[in-house]
Amino acid sequence: MTYCVGLRLNQGLVFMSDTRTNAGVDNFSSTRKLFTWEVEGDRLITLMTAGNLATTQSLISLLDERSKTAADRDPSILREPTMFQVARLVGATLKEVISYSNSVGGEEKFRATVIVGGQIKGGEPTLFMVYPEGNFVEVTEETPFFQIGETKYGKPILVRGFDPKMSFADAVKLLMVSFDSTVKSNLSVGLPFDILCYETGDFKPTHRKRVETDDELYHRISEGWSLALKEAFSSLPDYTL
Amino acid sequence: MTYCVGLRLNQGLVFMSDTRTNAGVDNFSSTRKLFTWEVEGDRLITLMTAGNLATTQSLISLLDERSKTAADRDPSILREPTMFQVARLVGATLKEVISYSNSVGGEEKFRATVIVGGQIKGGEPTLFMVYPEGNFVEVTEETPFFQIGETKYGKPILVRGFDPKMSFADAVKLLMVSFDSTVKSNLSVGLPFDILCYETGDFKPTHRKRVETDDELYHRISEGWSLALKEAFSSLPDYTL
Repeated sequence: MTYCVGLRLNQGLVFMSDTRTNAGVDNFSSTRKLFTWEVEGDRLITLMTAGNLATTQSLISLLDERSKTAADRDPSILREPTMFQVARLVGATLKEVISYSNSVGGEEKFRATVIVGGQIKGGEPTLFMVYPEGNFVEVTEETPFFQIGETKYGKPILVRGFDPKMSFADAVKLLMVSFDSTVKSNLSVGLPFDILCYETGDFKPTHRKRVETDDELYHRISEGWSLALKEAFSSLPDYTL
Repeated sequence: MTYCVGLRLNQGLVFMSDTRTNAGVDNFSSTRKLFTWEVEGDRLITLMTAGNLATTQSLISLLDERSKTAADRDPSILREPTMFQVARLVGATLKEVISYSNSVGGEEKFRATVIVGGQIKGGEPTLFMVYPEGNFVEVTEETPFFQIGETKYGKPILVRGFDPKMSFADAVKLLMVSFDSTVKSNLSVGLPFDILCYETGDFKPTHRKRVETDDELYHRISEGWSLALKEAFSSLPDYTL
């Protein structure tokens, strides 16, 4: 499995992904699921993947290759004029990869889902969730974040804690709590985590970090959250039998 | 869907279930999912169900009928000598109901899962989770609670907050938070909720309550939790970009 979240704040965009991949519990490893394409001063596009690893690696390689090889350059993720066109390109490429595998008997096995977001000069920063069928939805004011992968354990704290007026620092802290809740409940999601913050108008990553397994702040937040929840709980009105 | 939780505390057992059933989002209603069989001074058995409604209703009716009709009286949930034998009976009956439906083409559609717990004189109070295949697992010190139905949203708070030394009042409060997190994330789980607390050696329900949609305490806990989480969150160490 996987856990990735993309948030749209007033200040910009925040992306966070885990790195665990597995094929059964006795075969797991660590792989990057957060990728960026950058043209300084013109665009920053960030993409996170969940699903079959052969599919997601092909998707990234195709998007990458087609942004470099002259013959294949049009369409390219580096030349699409808007984020909407980027989402269409990602959707079409994802569908192409899945169809290729399915045609040799894969059926539903080779599916993947993608969050793609960023900003291209002349447009606002935005986020899309792209489905295996190649279609996609965009964030709105009512739904200002997307999750993919093992989304359920970490959703309640996002629903309660998210506020588009948050700072990047608070948003990352909120995501760390959401990821920690997920890691504590599901073996298939694991550290290290990748974080990318993008401030509107920067056209380059404003902040990037890999949170390693022994990251001190992450562990302080995780332990602090257990304590803080206990206090929060005891502050609630009492049930009487 | 459904959400039911059974907890084993040092003091006894706590059961809580929602009541929503649905067949698609345009066809939902409210139905009881928590049932008891009682012989005062001898046994209290509580059963909660998740899954196909035709299956779970048949299961309850069969268990009930066979505890009343003379010809069918052995085996009966009212006469089994131990909770282990009760779990075997429930498993066998569940499997019988599912096999009947599957034989007319149901395949996986008619599955259901059950939490059954209680105490029979001469034994300790305990809980079992019974699978559609008729087999089951019992709570242990390491795994002192079972969830069935839509279990993921409400699990993180149980993992962090549960303590077998809790009072009934605190356990119900914890469950209310867990149910509230689930209701806020999944339309197929809804109020009213049924609660039953059983104190070791009582052989009757120690406390029963139906939490109605307009229950004041539930809404105070739900709102209080949003506020308390915000405070808990702001007490965590800060992330710095």
